[in-house]
This record gives sequence, structure tokens and C-alpha cells, in this order.
Amino acid sequence: MIVVMNHGVKDNQIEAVVSRLQNEGFNIHLSKGVERTIIGAVGDKTRLSCIAIEAMAGVEKVVPILHPYKLASREFKPERTVIRVHGLEIGGDQVQIMAGPCAVESREQLLETAHIVRNAGATILRGGAFKPRTSPYSFHGLEEDGLKILAEAREATGMPIVTEVMDTKSVELVAEYADILQIGARNMQNFFLLREVANTNKPVLLKRGPSATIEEWILAAEYIMAGGNRQVIFCERGIRTFETATRNTLDLSSVPLVKSLTHLPVIVDPSHGTGKWALVTPMSKGAIACGADGLMVEVHPRPAEALSDGPQSLTEENFTKLISEVETIAAALGRPLGRL
Amino acid sequence: MIVVMNHGVKDNQIEAVVSRLQNEGFNIHLSKGVERTIIGAVGDKTRLSCIAIEAMAGVEKVVPILHPYKLASREFKPERTVIRVHGLEIGGDQVQIMAGPCAVESREQLLETAHIVRNAGATILRGGAFKPRTSPYSFHGLEEDGLKILAEAREATGMPIVTEVMDTKSVELVAEYADILQIGARNMQNFFLLREVANTNKPVLLKRGPSATIEEWILAAEYIMAGGNRQVIFCERGIRTFETATRNTLDLSSVPLVKSLTHLPVIVDPSHGTGKWALVTPMSKGAIACGADGLMVEVHPRPAEALSDGPQSLTEENFTKLISEVETIAAALGRPLGRL
Amino acid sequence: MIVVMNHGVKDNQIEAVVSRLQNEGFNIHLSKGVERTIIGAVGDKTRLSCIAIEAMAGVEKVVPILHPYKLASREFKPERTVIRVHGLEIGGDQVQIMAGPCAVESREQLLETAHIVRNAGATILRGGAFKPRTSPYSFHGLEEDGLKILAEAREATGMPIVTEVMDTKSVELVAEYADILQIGARNMQNFFLLREVANTNKPVLLKRGPSATIEEWILAAEYIMAGGNRQVIFCERGIRTFETATRNTLDLSSVPLVKSLTHLPVIVDPSHGTGKWALVTPMSKGAIACGADGLMVEVHPRPAEALSDGPQSLTEENFTKLISEVETIAAALGRPLGRL
Amino acid sequence: MIVVMNHGVKDNQIEAVVSRLQNEGFNIHLSKGVERTIIGAVGDKTRLSCIAIEAMAGVEKVVPILHPYKLASREFKPERTVIRVHGLEIGGDQVQIMAGPCAVESREQLLETAHIVRNAGATILRGGAFKPRTSPYSFHGLEEDGLKILAEAREATGMPIVTEVMDTKSVELVAEYADILQIGARNMQNFFLLREVANTNKPVLLKRGPSATIEEWILAAEYIMAGGNRQVIFCERGIRTFETATRNTLDLSSVPLVKSLTHLPVIVDPSHGTGKWALVTPMSKGAIACGADGLMVEVHPRPAEALSDGPQSLTEENFTKLISEVETIAAALGRPLGRL
Repeated sequence: MIVVMNHGVKDNQIEAVVSRLQNEGFNIHLSKGVERTIIGAVGDKTRLSCIAIEAMAGVEKVVPILHPYKLASREFKPERTVIRVHGLEIGGDQVQIMAGPCAVESREQLLETAHIVRNAGATILRGGAFKPRTSPYSFHGLEEDGLKILAEAREATGMPIVTEVMDTKSVELVAEYADILQIGARNMQNFFLLREVANTNKPVLLKRGPSATIEEWILAAEYIMAGGNRQVIFCERGIRTFETATRNTLDLSSVPLVKSLTHLPVIVDPSHGTGKWALVTPMSKGAIACGADGLMVEVHPRPAEALSDGPQSLTEENFTKLISEVETIAAALGRPLGRL
Repeated sequence: MIVVMNHGVKDNQIEAVVSRLQNEGFNIHLSKGVERTIIGAVGDKTRLSCIAIEAMAGVEKVVPILHPYKLASREFKPERTVIRVHGLEIGGDQVQIMAGPCAVESREQLLETAHIVRNAGATILRGGAFKPRTSPYSFHGLEEDGLKILAEAREATGMPIVTEVMDTKSVELVAEYADILQIGARNMQNFFLLREVANTNKPVLLKRGPSATIEEWILAAEYIMAGGNRQVIFCERGIRTFETATRNTLDLSSVPLVKSLTHLPVIVDPSHGTGKWALVTPMSKGAIACGADGLMVEVHPRPAEALSDGPQSLTEENFTKLISEVETIAAALGRPLGRL
Repeated sequence: MIVVMNHGVKDNQIEAVVSRLQNEGFNIHLSKGVERTIIGAVGDKTRLSCIAIEAMAGVEKVVPILHPYKLASREFKPERTVIRVHGLEIGGDQVQIMAGPCAVESREQLLETAHIVRNAGATILRGGAFKPRTSPYSFHGLEEDGLKILAEAREATGMPIVTEVMDTKSVELVAEYADILQIGARNMQNFFLLREVANTNKPVLLKRGPSATIEEWILAAEYIMAGGNRQVIFCERGIRTFETATRNTLDLSSVPLVKSLTHLPVIVDPSHGTGKWALVTPMSKGAIACGADGLMVEVHPRPAEALSDGPQSLTEENFTKLISEVETIAAALGRPLGRL
Repeated sequence: MIVVMNHGVKDNQIEAVVSRLQNEGFNIHLSKGVERTIIGAVGDKTRLSCIAIEAMAGVEKVVPILHPYKLASREFKPERTVIRVHGLEIGGDQVQIMAGPCAVESREQLLETAHIVRNAGATILRGGAFKPRTSPYSFHGLEEDGLKILAEAREATGMPIVTEVMDTKSVELVAEYADILQIGARNMQNFFLLREVANTNKPVLLKRGPSATIEEWILAAEYIMAGGNRQVIFCERGIRTFETATRNTLDLSSVPLVKSLTHLPVIVDPSHGTGKWALVTPMSKGAIACGADGLMVEVHPRPAEALSDGPQSLTEENFTKLISEVETIAAALGRPLGRL
């Protein structure tokens, strides 16, 4: 940590900061320049967040030097983490395609979609039983009934299931049915929920919050890891910007960046990332080309009848085409699609 | 709702959309232009969020005409809502100053701060017993012990208490102690939590999410109101933008805008809104001048020792000055500060 | 400047950076920690922007310590700059109201508006002769004819004129007519234009770019000052964010912040800042309350007939009310409105 | 255009809007609902930007239905535009790689770099003779000397040249030397400059402004096309968001989106788009995979000695690797790299 003191700082102010830091166990390097005095502090980075140096008299700003996370970092664990689900590898060579409807709407709809995505080449079934919706008047999911339908589809197709958990009270319930627990974008900083999924032994798919920085996203993973669950999969799904032509701005640069900063897998959700079905296939190809370990794609047999996210859902025909085009890109990179 | 069809749309596509909307109970106005065919649909707006018209063949875009909220809107209830807490009015003529430390750190710290802000003129005591923190390694609050200390401070000063509730599991507990339940910015779209506080009879202070639009913010209030609790207080606390010189960008224009769209009170938190104590007083004055019904301000006897948010906390001296300057502005507008 | 070296950096990489910096005349403080080696460099900050230290082997990141501007900073000139125009003071105690139509549309429209704003209490007349418009098919201004009409209005009312200059080729022409040269938001980083207005002896009103950070805004002023013109007035007019309920997000916190970082005056344009006439008066009051030295407001006798920016223009009645309410706020702060 | 009237609008207000629109030559469809009256107006869209309907009494909002651009749209010209430069095709099957240093620093530096990129497989040489820089104290380019060096490099390598023009006064000069005129991101809405390059017969590479929406970007192209120059190449280079881990957020979804809305070529600049050399190759692959017609990449023989943008410049080794990896992706898509 570097503490930059104000122009015109007084000696006793410098001494107060130095002695405060020394009391907290930091080693100090003092550098007095003509325009600014700078204090370098070296020590346990996880304690830094507890000291309000910036509020001390004479301090202009505090500049952190180290990343504030540890367990998620590549420095802590240089080799890549590969997460295994029903024999599939996430974060290894294989590219996994997770697909299914936004929401489980009925037994028929889910089973039909599960067979469609299975036949097209998807390996993991997605579908929401609990749905976060901006309006209180929208469809909010079938809840436990939806989980049971998902389990039936797993029986029928052999596909493991990823589904969202929205509340600490239902973590145990969802974990009974799901193979991968999804933390939705709006819950990325729901810290009680992060701590609760940390207590399960299920892999966690952690969506990026719509206004989360890369660092905050990794810190959310650190919560789960510090709580004892090391199986975290990042999922880029777009951030909120001024652009309104797309639902979100899909930040594909987060894929190579997070893979360089952490050892964890990164997948991409181009459906929420764009909000427009016509952009889902090109952005899926872009995602794989820049290094994503997989995709999460919304598919619906009849998008116009979907109870949520119809405009970004692919039909069977379009999804089959997506898989074929993505496979070509993955093959060019020497990566196979996962197979059940 | 206006449905704009694609250039070159086919007649059967138009018919499909029309018949779908009619089946859902909408009245239809069809307008065929040279470049575009447009379908106007009039009916129950709360059902619109359930139909994926945008996913139907031939549809270019769907433009909503009405606001998607009802109970919160001024059209539904033109007269302003005034919320009463221990004899104080929020949303009436009085300007209420809520103040206190970011976090309850100890009995001594909280009681000392409570007396400071009470003497300076604040009417409502703030203080976090449960603290959402970006890092798992930061101080997370004293939890129930913190709530007990808050209750003791209420006894000692007569000030009602506003404190954050972060998780559905602790709503009942927090509601036992708090006079106003605070929903933090990161939880603005934690829909289970919104539904849970709707079941209490306590007023809810609803902070704006860092990337929430005005419409989403009002819809979050609509969740609480639709759940049976009509006592919602909006709290603007800054949004996330590209600017890094301040912690957030305090969007004061939301104050007059939300007051024109809804009948609910709006207060402002300039501490989180700027992240810099030196900006808190000027922005407090700006907030009151543009119509805010109150302020929420962080105060700490010794900001440099604060376990969180020290850099944005005011000392006793600065807070006393703030109250005096804010009172001058309020007086110029014909509004008195609230008094216990 | 602080150079943070990578974890695992090699000694020769450290030496290369140190020797490069020493060759450029910097004094070096080297600090080797367990996790990171840090190099502090002290020297002429204006040369830092020319060395690509970040591209050297072994460098993780470079953290600037000092602000990159000099002439605009309060450290360079602690006393406030007051700019005088026709006996009016901008940046002193007085609050100046600049008002007029978005665009000069005709002789009649401008003279009528000039008299309206003069009678209501404005001191400086605004009006665009050259108009930047997003669409090539919109009205682009009367150009030199518009300037002549502005000059006539100055004769008729005694109000000095502020008007936009958009292109280096017309700086000389506009400077013949204008009392204050306006640099529009989209041209804030048109560096050739900044250098050209630096060659005139007219005060420059520098609007903040829609995506400009505070630092970039001050650096744009530094361009003008480094070119020899020290009379720069900052004008906050809103930044582009994800919020669509307002045209821009008016960042009033920039007012006290820029006034603390520089010695130059800061005014606010609530018309562009909100895009909605109903928000102009509340935000004007907020702007003055948080310390602005003046306002720039769009007024049109018949907003619905305006060739640009009608929705954000005030009528005579609304503008008269604005002045009266702003005067009350200013008076509470001990500041008079300017008078011709 | 749809005009939504206020709840409680009066009949004479409706009539005033209708009659105003009819006078402007629009056909009107009136639809009176229980909650809102809606007026549909069909007519010449390019005139809409000139009428301030939103400012008329009783109007709640105006919703445009058609895109505000014409010449750039695919409806106007469904077949794709292919731009030819020295026998190379931009916007056809070929993928073109434009590469070179950020700035022309010296004859030696440019010629060395030109040979490097030529040998690696680039087809078009980039290099700035005029450099927009945030600080007045940075290197601003060699100006005409730089243009002469670029021309010499073209002689030596056979590569056509793309270089930035920053000011109307130098358009003629730059057009004498350049094969493609670049409009920089900060000048995307410098409308005088757009009109000036419209008067040349050189293709224009139009960078996206850091806060420009897709629609504004296309309207900037429309300026050039309406001025008579139909050869516009879009260049996505990242937008400004809250994320600070990258210099900009590269919005790759703009590639398929702009290609669906217009008939013009789209290329991507991953160097400015990320600001980090380590991300340039993955994002180049992503760009081509999602449909870009080419890349613009910064290369420097010794990035650490670059006078600008060193941290995002590739070395010879890295650039050669980029070309090879991009070629693999392009081949998988059935697209060849361009060849001189």
C-alpha cells in the first residue's frame, strides 16, 4: 500500500500515519519528495481493508498495490482449476455448452427443450425454477415443482443441471436437486448467499453483476472460496453501460483477463449479454475464440411463447446452427466440445 | 404498448401478433405505413411483462407506453405519502437528518456518536449491525449485539433507529429492534428480501442500486407495496459511472424526478454518494435545495479509526457545521428541520 | 510515480526500469517486499506522460502520484480566479445567470428571448450560431448571420454574449462577436480547437465532455492555459450514464470537487444536464446550493416551436420563477445575483 | 413517430399536436385509450428532428419508430459495401490487418515497424502523424514530416496507409498522403470535420466515440455519406464504462449489430479497446470470430520506448503470433487474410 500525503503535510501528520501502520504490523518506507511525501507500507494485505488510513489528517490518497484476493489468484495457485460434473470437465480442454430455457414453465416445455439441446450437442441443462424479475407482476418460477421437473429431465437425458438459487433459505433445497448452483447477476454481492453456497459441496456458477468490476467479481468468488468451496465457475453475462441497442454490453475482454488473474474457469452467457437472439451465435463464436471454457445459452421450442426472455432465446434450428459454428471455432483452437 | 413490425413484414405475421394480443385481452389499433406497420395494444399493463411479443416473427421492437408500476405512481395516488416514525414526519414539510456511524463498532463508539448527532440536530440514528462488504476479510458487523447497542442508544437519546437488513433469515430479528428497515444498494433487487420486508409493519428505506435505473428503483418499491407495505422511503446514494474521482456519482436529479413520478418520500445519502467527507456538506445542501425530504449522513467521532467508510465520515465539528448550513437552505425553502 | 513490479520479477528487469528512470532525470526509491518490488520515482511530472514504463519487462502497473496538470491547479495558484466580462464577475461572490435559446433561429426570436431573460434577471445572453447536431438532417444554425443577430441583441440589452465555436476555421470570426467563447461538450477534447481559442483574449466556457473524467476536463483547461489564455470557466452539463430517464446525469459533485482542485470558476447547465424543463429549476437550486458560480439555462418564448432542445427550454414564466427561487438560495448563502 | 399524451390531457392539447403534425406533412392515427391517448405520425423521418413536439403542452413523451439514418442503412442498400484500397477489399471476404505504431516517431522507427508488420502479414500500415493526447505536455506527432515518412514507408513496402486527420484545416494535407483517412474516437462527433472528409474521395475509417451509442455512430457515418462520400469503414475501439481493469470496454457485439443495421464494413481495434498488449491477441481472435472485416493493431519494435501507447503495443514476436492465430480463426470461417 502506498499512502500519498497532501502537499504541505505536517511532520506530526506523517508520524501519526507511520506509527498507525507500524502498530498494525506493517513495514514502512518513507520517501519525502519536493511536492509530496509518500509512505510505502508492506504487510498482510487482508488487514488493509480494516484501516481507514484515508481518513487520517494529511492523507491525500491511498493506493493499494496488491490485489485484495488470495485464494482465487493465480499467484496462490498457478495451475488451472478443472471442475468435474458427471464426468464433464469445466476449465479443461473441453468446451461445455449449457443450454435450456430461461425458466422452467411446465414439465412438457422443459422435457421438450432438454431433448432438443441434448440432441444438438449441449452437455449441461439450464433452467430457472426461481426467477428474479424486475417487476412484481412477472412470472417468478415454479419453485420446488420446477426443481423436480429439472431432476426428471436429468433422468431422461443424462444431462447434469445448473439452476439458480436466490435466497439463503432455499440453498439446501436447491442443492438437493442441482448439480451446479447458479448465483445470478443481481445476487453477485449478496454476501449471505455467497457464504451459504460456500457451505455446500456443489460447484457454483457465479454470474458477473451488471455493475461489478472484475475485482469485485473475483472478490465474490473469494467469499465462496474462503467459506470452504473452491469450485467456482465465472460467468460473464454483460455489464450495464450507456448503450441501449443491446440489453447489456458483453465484456468479452473479461474472459482472457480473469483467466490471467485467477485459476478458475470462465464461461460466457451471450443470451443475457446481448438480449437479442440474432447476436447470440456471433457472440458465442467470439467468446470461444477469445478463450471461454463454455457457454450458457437460452433455448426455447417456441420463443414467442416463453414466459421470460423470449427475445433472446434460440429456436431448435438456430441452436443447432450455433453448436455447429462454435464447434468449428473450437476445433480451430484445438478444443473439443464436451460429450456426455 | 406499441409493436413495430419489420420493414417487409408479411401479412400472416401481422395477423399472428394481432391475434395473440387479442387473445390476451388487448384492444388493437393497426396502422400500416409505407415503411412500417405499427400495432397499438391497449389493456392491462401488468400482464404485458408476461408476453414475449418481441420474439414473434416479423416484430422489430416493442415500445411500452405506460410505466410498469402502479401502487407507487402518482397517478394511482396523487397526494404525497407522509411516513411517521416516533412523531417525526418523513415526506412532509420537515427535513429529517439521519446520522450515525457506518457500522456499530462497540457500545462506546455508538453511544458517543449518538449523543454527538443528537446534540447537533439529527433526528434519526443510523448504524449498521450487518455490513455488506466487498471483501470477505473486512469487518462485517456485530450482528445481534449491534442491534442491542442500537436499541440502548435509542433509549439514551430518544432517536428512532434505521439499520440495514441483509438477509431474509434476519428480517424478523432486525424488525424487532429497528424503527426503519434499510435495504442496502446491493440488495435493491434482492426480490426475496423485498417480499420479506413487505410482511413487516416497519417503514422501509430503499437505497438505489448502483446500476439501477429510476424505473427499476420504483419497481423495487412496487414489490414492497404489492406485498402489503406501503411505507417506502427512497434513498438516492449515487450510481456507478466511469468517473473515479468520487466513489459514486450522486444523481441529484433523481430527487425531483422520483418525486414527480411517485408519491413517496426521497432522501439523499451524500456520504456513499461521494465517498469523500469534504464533499458531504456541499452535496447535502444541494440535495435539500433540489427537494430532498432528508439526508442520511455518516458521522464518526474519530473517522481515522472507523472500521468502515472512514474517508467519508464527518467529525462532530464538520457535522455540526453541516446541520447549520443545511438548516439555512431548508429555511430559505420554507422547510423546518425535524425536531425530537 | 510508483512502479509496481510483477511477482517474480528478475533483478535485471528492476535494473532496467531504474536506469531508464534515472536517465530521464528521476530520483529513485527502491523498496523490495516479499510479494512485490516497488520503485518510487520523483521528478518532473509533465515528462511522465512520455515514457512507456508500463511496457517494460517485469512491470505490473504504474501508479501516478501527482495530478497531471499544473497551471489549473490550486497548488500552483491558491487564490481563486475571477473572470471579468463587461463589469460582471464570474468566480467571485456574484452568481451569474446565462440564459437564452439553444439556437439563434431568427432576429425576432433572439431579440424577444433576450429581452425576456434580461427582464427576468439574467446577465449574460447565450445562443448558438453554430450548432453541433447528432443528425445531418437537423438545423445547424445561422452561422455568421446568427452572430450578427447576437451582436444586435447585445446592443439592445447590454448583455454580453456567450456562443459556441465549433471549428478552428471559425475561431477568429466567432471571437469578433462573442464576449465568451463556448467549447461544446463534444469538442472538449478537440485539441486543435483548444489551442486555437488559447490564442484569443476571450474567456472560454469549457463544457464537460459527456464521458470526460474530472481529470480529463481539467487537462482540457490546461491545454487552453498552457496556450496562453488563463480565463477558463468550467461548465458541468451532465455525463452519459446508463440512466435514460434524463438526457444526461448531472454530476453536481463536480462543482465542489473542481473548485477544490482548481482555482477556476465552475457553472452548471441544468438544461442539457437533465433534458427536461421540469427538472431545470430544482437542479438550478441544487447547483447554486452546492457552490456553483452561475448557471447556463435554455429559454425560448415558445419551446414547442424551437428548432432544437425545445423539451428542455423554459418559458418566460418558468424562467422568471427559476430566477426568483435561485435568488432565494443564493441569498441564503450570502451570494448576490449579478446585475448589469 | 408515436406521441404519448399525458394522463388527463385536454382535447385542445391533442388537437394542437395533431394540427402541428399535419401542417408538417405527417399522416395521423389517433388512438384514445382509458389511460393514455396516443398519436401516431407517419411521414418524412428526416424532418422529425426539427419539430419539438416533446415541448408541446400535454405531451408525455415522443417515441421514434424509424432509425434516423437512411444512406447507411441496409434498408436503403441491402447489398454489402466493399471498399477497395490498392487492390485490397475491405468489407468483402478478405480479412485485412492494419498494423503499425501508434505514432510516427522517426523515419527509422516507422520503416522498421512497416517491414515487421509487412513481413508478418499485415496489409495496411497505420501510424499517427497528428496525435490527440489528453495532456498538453505529451508528444503530439511529427505532423507533415510524419506524413512524408508514411509515404516513404508505402513506397518501401507497398502497403497503403491509414492515418488520422484531426482538424478541418489539415484535411487537404492529410488526404494528399493517406490512402484511408482516420477519424479518431474523440472526433466522431466533430461535425465540421465529418463534412470536410466527406469532400475528399478517400475512404474514411470512423472510430466509435468512447461514449457513442451505435445509433450516434451510424449517424456520424450518415454525415459523411450525406456529404457525398460513401466509403465509410466503422472501427470499434471500445467504449467508456465503469470498468477500470481495461482502458476501454471493447464492445464486440457492435460488430454483428452494425453489420445487420448497415451495409458498411466493420473492423476492430483491440489495442485501444483493451489498453493491454496481453489482451490484444485473444480479442483479435474474438473480433474475427464474431464477424469483423479486419483489425487495427498497434505494433512497436520496442514498446517500452514508444512515445505513446507502449503498454498496448505488440512486439514483432507477439504480432507474428497474432497473425498466425487470427488466420486460423479466419480460415475456420472460410475467410482468407488479405494479401498484397
